[in-house]
Amino acid sequence: MLPQVRSAETADVYFLRSRDALRYLGLDPKVGMSVFPGRAGVCCGIRQVVELLSEARFDGELWALQEGDTAESGEAALEIYGKYSAFGVYETAILGILASCSGWATAAAEVVGAGAPVPVVSFGARHVHPNVSAIMDYCAIVGGCVTCSTPLGATLAGLAPSGTMPHAYVLIVGDTVQAAEGFDQAMDDTVPRVVLVDTFQDEAVESVRVAQALGDRLQGIRLDTPSERGGVTPSLVCEVRARLDLAGFRHVQIAVSGGVTPERIIRFREAQAPVDMYGVGSHITAALPIDYTGDIREIDGRPVSKRGRIPGMQRHGRLQQIL
Amino acid sequence: MLPQVRSAETADVYFLRSRDALRYLGLDPKVGMSVFPGRAGVCCGIRQVVELLSEARFDGELWALQEGDTAESGEAALEIYGKYSAFGVYETAILGILASCSGWATAAAEVVGAGAPVPVVSFGARHVHPNVSAIMDYCAIVGGCVTCSTPLGATLAGLAPSGTMPHAYVLIVGDTVQAAEGFDQAMDDTVPRVVLVDTFQDEAVESVRVAQALGDRLQGIRLDTPSERGGVTPSLVCEVRARLDLAGFRHVQIAVSGGVTPERIIRFREAQAPVDMYGVGSHITAALPIDYTGDIREIDGRPVSKRGRIPGMQRHGRLQQIL
Amino acid sequence: MLPQVRSAETADVYFLRSRDALRYLGLDPKVGMSVFPGRAGVCCGIRQVVELLSEARFDGELWALQEGDTAESGEAALEIYGKYSAFGVYETAILGILASCSGWATAAAEVVGAGAPVPVVSFGARHVHPNVSAIMDYCAIVGGCVTCSTPLGATLAGLAPSGTMPHAYVLIVGDTVQAAEGFDQAMDDTVPRVVLVDTFQDEAVESVRVAQALGDRLQGIRLDTPSERGGVTPSLVCEVRARLDLAGFRHVQIAVSGGVTPERIIRFREAQAPVDMYGVGSHITAALPIDYTGDIREIDGRPVSKRGRIPGMQRHGRLQQIL
Amino acid sequence: MLPQVRSAETADVYFLRSRDALRYLGLDPKVGMSVFPGRAGVCCGIRQVVELLSEARFDGELWALQEGDTAESGEAALEIYGKYSAFGVYETAILGILASCSGWATAAAEVVGAGAPVPVVSFGARHVHPNVSAIMDYCAIVGGCVTCSTPLGATLAGLAPSGTMPHAYVLIVGDTVQAAEGFDQAMDDTVPRVVLVDTFQDEAVESVRVAQALGDRLQGIRLDTPSERGGVTPSLVCEVRARLDLAGFRHVQIAVSGGVTPERIIRFREAQAPVDMYGVGSHITAALPIDYTGDIREIDGRPVSKRGRIPGMQRHGRLQQIL
Amino acid sequence: MLPQVRSAETADVYFLRSRDALRYLGLDPKVGMSVFPGRAGVCCGIRQVVELLSEARFDGELWALQEGDTAESGEAALEIYGKYSAFGVYETAILGILASCSGWATAAAEVVGAGAPVPVVSFGARHVHPNVSAIMDYCAIVGGCVTCSTPLGATLAGLAPSGTMPHAYVLIVGDTVQAAEGFDQAMDDTVPRVVLVDTFQDEAVESVRVAQALGDRLQGIRLDTPSERGGVTPSLVCEVRARLDLAGFRHVQIAVSGGVTPERIIRFREAQAPVDMYGVGSHITAALPIDYTGDIREIDGRPVSKRGRIPGMQRHGRLQQIL
Amino acid sequence: MLPQVRSAETADVYFLRSRDALRYLGLDPKVGMSVFPGRAGVCCGIRQVVELLSEARFDGELWALQEGDTAESGEAALEIYGKYSAFGVYETAILGILASCSGWATAAAEVVGAGAPVPVVSFGARHVHPNVSAIMDYCAIVGGCVTCSTPLGATLAGLAPSGTMPHAYVLIVGDTVQAAEGFDQAMDDTVPRVVLVDTFQDEAVESVRVAQALGDRLQGIRLDTPSERGGVTPSLVCEVRARLDLAGFRHVQIAVSGGVTPERIIRFREAQAPVDMYGVGSHITAALPIDYTGDIREIDGRPVSKRGRIPGMQRHGRLQQIL
Repeated sequence: MLPQVRSAETADVYFLRSRDALRYLGLDPKVGMSVFPGRAGVCCGIRQVVELLSEARFDGELWALQEGDTAESGEAALEIYGKYSAFGVYETAILGILASCSGWATAAAEVVGAGAPVPVVSFGARHVHPNVSAIMDYCAIVGGCVTCSTPLGATLAGLAPSGTMPHAYVLIVGDTVQAAEGFDQAMDDTVPRVVLVDTFQDEAVESVRVAQALGDRLQGIRLDTPSERGGVTPSLVCEVRARLDLAGFRHVQIAVSGGVTPERIIRFREAQAPVDMYGVGSHITAALPIDYTGDIREIDGRPVSKRGRIPGMQRHGRLQQIL
Repeated sequence: MLPQVRSAETADVYFLRSRDALRYLGLDPKVGMSVFPGRAGVCCGIRQVVELLSEARFDGELWALQEGDTAESGEAALEIYGKYSAFGVYETAILGILASCSGWATAAAEVVGAGAPVPVVSFGARHVHPNVSAIMDYCAIVGGCVTCSTPLGATLAGLAPSGTMPHAYVLIVGDTVQAAEGFDQAMDDTVPRVVLVDTFQDEAVESVRVAQALGDRLQGIRLDTPSERGGVTPSLVCEVRARLDLAGFRHVQIAVSGGVTPERIIRFREAQAPVDMYGVGSHITAALPIDYTGDIREIDGRPVSKRGRIPGMQRHGRLQQIL
Repeated sequence: MLPQVRSAETADVYFLRSRDALRYLGLDPKVGMSVFPGRAGVCCGIRQVVELLSEARFDGELWALQEGDTAESGEAALEIYGKYSAFGVYETAILGILASCSGWATAAAEVVGAGAPVPVVSFGARHVHPNVSAIMDYCAIVGGCVTCSTPLGATLAGLAPSGTMPHAYVLIVGDTVQAAEGFDQAMDDTVPRVVLVDTFQDEAVESVRVAQALGDRLQGIRLDTPSERGGVTPSLVCEVRARLDLAGFRHVQIAVSGGVTPERIIRFREAQAPVDMYGVGSHITAALPIDYTGDIREIDGRPVSKRGRIPGMQRHGRLQQIL
Repeated sequence: MLPQVRSAETADVYFLRSRDALRYLGLDPKVGMSVFPGRAGVCCGIRQVVELLSEARFDGELWALQEGDTAESGEAALEIYGKYSAFGVYETAILGILASCSGWATAAAEVVGAGAPVPVVSFGARHVHPNVSAIMDYCAIVGGCVTCSTPLGATLAGLAPSGTMPHAYVLIVGDTVQAAEGFDQAMDDTVPRVVLVDTFQDEAVESVRVAQALGDRLQGIRLDTPSERGGVTPSLVCEVRARLDLAGFRHVQIAVSGGVTPERIIRFREAQAPVDMYGVGSHITAALPIDYTGDIREIDGRPVSKRGRIPGMQRHGRLQQIL
Repeated sequence: MLPQVRSAETADVYFLRSRDALRYLGLDPKVGMSVFPGRAGVCCGIRQVVELLSEARFDGELWALQEGDTAESGEAALEIYGKYSAFGVYETAILGILASCSGWATAAAEVVGAGAPVPVVSFGARHVHPNVSAIMDYCAIVGGCVTCSTPLGATLAGLAPSGTMPHAYVLIVGDTVQAAEGFDQAMDDTVPRVVLVDTFQDEAVESVRVAQALGDRLQGIRLDTPSERGGVTPSLVCEVRARLDLAGFRHVQIAVSGGVTPERIIRFREAQAPVDMYGVGSHITAALPIDYTGDIREIDGRPVSKRGRIPGMQRHGRLQQIL
Repeated sequence: MLPQVRSAETADVYFLRSRDALRYLGLDPKVGMSVFPGRAGVCCGIRQVVELLSEARFDGELWALQEGDTAESGEAALEIYGKYSAFGVYETAILGILASCSGWATAAAEVVGAGAPVPVVSFGARHVHPNVSAIMDYCAIVGGCVTCSTPLGATLAGLAPSGTMPHAYVLIVGDTVQAAEGFDQAMDDTVPRVVLVDTFQDEAVESVRVAQALGDRLQGIRLDTPSERGGVTPSLVCEVRARLDLAGFRHVQIAVSGGVTPERIIRFREAQAPVDMYGVGSHITAALPIDYTGDIREIDGRPVSKRGRIPGMQRHGRLQQIL
């Protein structure tokens, strides 16, 4: 996390002013704050909240769901007990972490659920600010993705990243088959040979050409047809599979990327299109944040709340003490 | 920006592999890359892209729109010319910066446009990861907000932050009038006295009580009624205004926050509700990113492109040379 | 009923002219008239039809469904046999009684069905002309309401009316607690103490204040929040319940009124909002009348009918002879 | 009006209890009550309100719109000033009169507006309770109908009623032509000869037969085809007109009734169907009441109001003093 | 079929040019062509394709579904193997036969399915070009109609045609009863006496008059009420049945025609209207053609295909060799 | 037309029976029949009706609109006067000709209107039975197409057909460039060189290859991309144009076919896609027939009609005497 988060420069300024006014008034009760989402989804970000409070030497109690648990709308995902001065200025950061991370993890879970048992890889780093792209990838893995495309995101999740070559590489080499051969020669054996086949020519034709060039070394081809050419359709996958099979390349797998959503995966499945892996980007990165709210519900042991909320902490059974 | 952005650990791994393979093949042409959005909107993030490329000692040319310009779908917002090895691994980061920042700035512009001439303040830090919350605030200001709630975001835009007190503060003090008086005594004179009046009691009643307590020192009250109590409605604003006026407090302004969207602002305007300031959060933070694409369109001076795209750079007249 | 109904001044004038022409022609056959609704619903008004024909000294036969039975579209609810001169001029009144009364009873049955087992009281007198408001209340009770707000309506149904205090009373006293105390002192013990709590202040705060003032004598509070303040929502009911319980007033019941419809009751039920009584007005008073048609289907024992209708009486088994 | 309205037996019982409690508390301030509709429409019922308050010897002031004026949503249609004890128990009746009457007048105005300049007659007595059917007819005339079918309704409006013969008459006589001839012989000359032609046979054939029988004495025919036979359609009217004209009966007018609504009138107009009069029933009687609210806004000269409403009387320029 | 079909003057001209170019290039491989529909439906037209290829002395193989089988979208309905020169120019005709015929048969199957077990007769010759009207009738019978109205269509299906008298005949005779009697006298005994009863007068009245005139010789009446009079409705059928039964003519059947669709049949069935036969026209003649595609999938034994299609013949088990 | 049309074997059998019954009754009045469409559109088929009546030696009068005129719903397009025996049995054929032909011409006019000024060619022969495919092409030309794909259809309209090569030809030759060269060598100079480029490979690549092979002799390329590959999109057309232009082939035109509809043409136009010709098939062949009705409106000079229709001929000014 950025150092400015810990120094509270990213807090809403009213929390800083509140801190100053309470100090002036000599008020610092022990409070209980309940933190809950505005809609149901996968709860993600707990780990970073713990990290932040630990770095800030918070000495109260923290009870929380486990990373990746489902949280219902209004159900406490986190309950914090302690002197208000010990954590009040971090309310903005805590809510923000949970909002972004839970939004990404929930969207990933949707697309993973639609695709199962076909694996899904998080490919969205290019659609989100690089300050959070690795965190987004980590959250996508919490939501069920098998891995992601950024090295830092994979490291956060203790995995190896996935990905082979961009269109830029194929364009610079100037021919798909030559690009595949160069890649094969340059990479060490741990890198799977998966070749992007839609840069210059018809995908079905190129797939067979690449397979003839790399033979058994070719693990798969990736279809990423641009929307200007109709995108990747179920019938394209079926045809590529049929032409590879007819040419004797049954072992070559087919990866699909480009605008993949749960709805489109369902159409692939209904058409029995033989996809071996989905790369998903914008469905995850365009996820709406799941807004969280932090409410003081107890002051010095007394149930309180603002209008519109039920006084008192929830203390339900799924919360575990972490700090 | 995080140091890992410059070290390319947040790049899609296939760009790192592409770099290695091209080095192995001895290929490093001078290329032109055109970067364009997938839908129209406010273009934002240029400043950070320049910062990143400068830090990376990029020695080619960079042509770009100006921060805050409108970019049409498919229209080049950025054109980069140089050795591919000098910037290729930053494609992920560049696109990600533009996607997130342009999404936020565009949503801010929508809500500012709906509210004009009533000023809008960015209040969304709590709905987005703290690693990007200040950047989000900066983008909201590029999109037209008059300022924002985070000190760091305001600093990025060369402004002072805005905000007074949270519900937590009022709850801890235990009474709205006492909270207002404490705040008034504790703060120096540069901080405007704007008091949150919906914590314990009916907003119209509390507004008059607070005004009677602070008199001329009170600059405004803020309505943030929770959705459980129907949210802030045009008729609530009209009634608060009428009751303040009947009690002789015509100088007290009314700020409105909580789920404010362009559609809701239009309903306030149609009802002629006398709002003096809007605080907007989730409409901006829930903005869809505007996905950008980076296409190689020229190699060693020759127009090229992948299937589905028009070969050649755009070089249109609104682009200016920055590097 | 108005005396002008019996004198046939409220008949369509063509029935008066028809009477004169038939007398001129010397025609007065024994006819059978079948009366049936245009859509299914609760049949109500039979009692008043009997009253009208009895007052008019009708000497033929009347077969009818029982008050409150369901009648299908096109199914005879009433069959009248007799000299045409003995009842022809009352066709307008008979159809009008059945249309209005069945519309009200059917709408009441809808809302009672949605609310069960929570009781529903008819509160709609203010939305309908006073010449029929007590009849509307009687029909609502036929449709399942436990009682109503008008003394005359309750008398028609052999019950006591329900209701405590209007906003006007609370406004004139000037404070909700004083209004409650005054009411408690002034009323004899048969009147339940149910206090309206939304006149001046937040409902949850006032409920607790009123409960503290009246203690065990308080039977319930009524929520009638105006739509300008969001109306009564499920979460408001839940919060009031929670705050009353926290303060030790578990015996105080919650009544809800203001725009209550079957759809809104379903939302209350889905949210498990602990409502103890609903007051329903405009859903019943805005009910569409169920139009009835009266067709001559037999003349001197011979089946006849106009074009578009099946000749002959229905004489089905659910009809019972009343006259 | 019923005597029970004046004795307040049709009041909501809480007004009676409020009266008793205020008397017990010795409170009887001079109040101002503003009465306004919940949606825009023709304001009707003022005359009956004046009648009721006059009978009740109300000695305060009454300011009101004129019968038939348009009232906007929330705009005061009536403002009453006086001792609360002098009119408080009539709030239910006043609101009920305005709700029903304004609903009927507004619906009538819609259908009259659609039909203009073709005259519309109110034919709905059979769809509404006879205690209010004449009042409904009076309101329909306030809304623009040229007259109505009930003698009492016509009397209220100072007009003569309209209508000729029912299906029952034609069925009893047994033949449309004989029925027409009998009617012609029996009626005095002031009754227009308009014959219902759809009872036994095809309307176009019967129209010509009736015209041949009555010749110049026939003023018009009425089409009331049941929905089982497709109802009256524009092409039926055109064909009847054409066949009458071909047979030389250009002077015979065509009246249309049965489920006539503004939408259906528009289709008749678009098809240029030559209708000379519309009889309208259920569109007016099925009108939603326009709910009115009565709010105390002034107590002993001081502006007040309950939550959600603006304190103070409206006293706008369209109100005139009546009492 | 027209002689110009066999001489290929109705082929798309590019097939003629293709034939000339291939002859110039000396190319005439043995090809396999797979012919399949774009949407599922009843496959019809096989018999005519065989006829055409036989007349053209085609000497290859033809495998096909059976006339009237269901074909799924994309499933081969026909596979042709032979020298391309032997059938290439007939591609247009083969596809056109299957498209029109399958469209008609499929629509007929829909309406027959909705009406079962009530028989349906094809009455649509008047809505389609006479060059194909008999073929349309034949296809309707393949789709399940019991017969049709044209002699040539019935001959193609080996049946006798159905139909009695047009409106023109009744108009010329000038009275429905006289028309019925004339028809009865003129026709030999094999022609069923079914009389059209809606020409001049109300259908229910005329039905009884005709039944009284023809007695036991009358087999049925036909209702074909024009849409200007509301068309034939379920309640009209019920009323005609009731009036015939009341008059003692239970043996007289009721045929219904005019705009009959599956949706309208469902309404008749739901209303339990006692229809004995439906005549259906425009639902069948307005059927969308089911477009067929002919793809070369094999050349000299080698699987081939154009882009977007799977190479190789389908040879599935439902195809039988015909030539 | 088929000989069986003239021999009336394609007539509805009831016309044949009507002919026999009238002969038996000795009735053969001079009648006037008015023929009109059920919805507005281009009137087409008049020429064939004249041909049929001439062949049948009809000796009465025929008044008609001109081929291609617009006819409104219910407006007479044809009026026939003569002995009923002279044309009665042709009613089925006359209505059928007008229904099919007017449906096709109207659909063609829609698509031509959307495409103007870009020319449209009728390509639908493969979607309609070959007995009427040439007539469909003729009607499409009446509706505005510049020509069609069948030689017989073009002959009917006095034009030359249009079309170059099918996918079958390219598949048999085995390579698009060789197919183009073979075609160029084989055809005489009057045949335009328009090459289908989507059979094997990416359309943009093949277009340039074909242009390089044929140079100035190449007039155009045709895009007919199958729906499995996304169909032809506006961006595909733009890219092909750009790549042809970049390679120096500005003179090569672009024809588009495959599922072209008015809606899709509008999208091409909005995207400014440079299409030079559209080939349209199924939009025209899937046109709903425009059902025509033939009504006897005059018998021996006397206005008559069946129920639901206005008696008498229309004789309006746009009708001209043809026979």
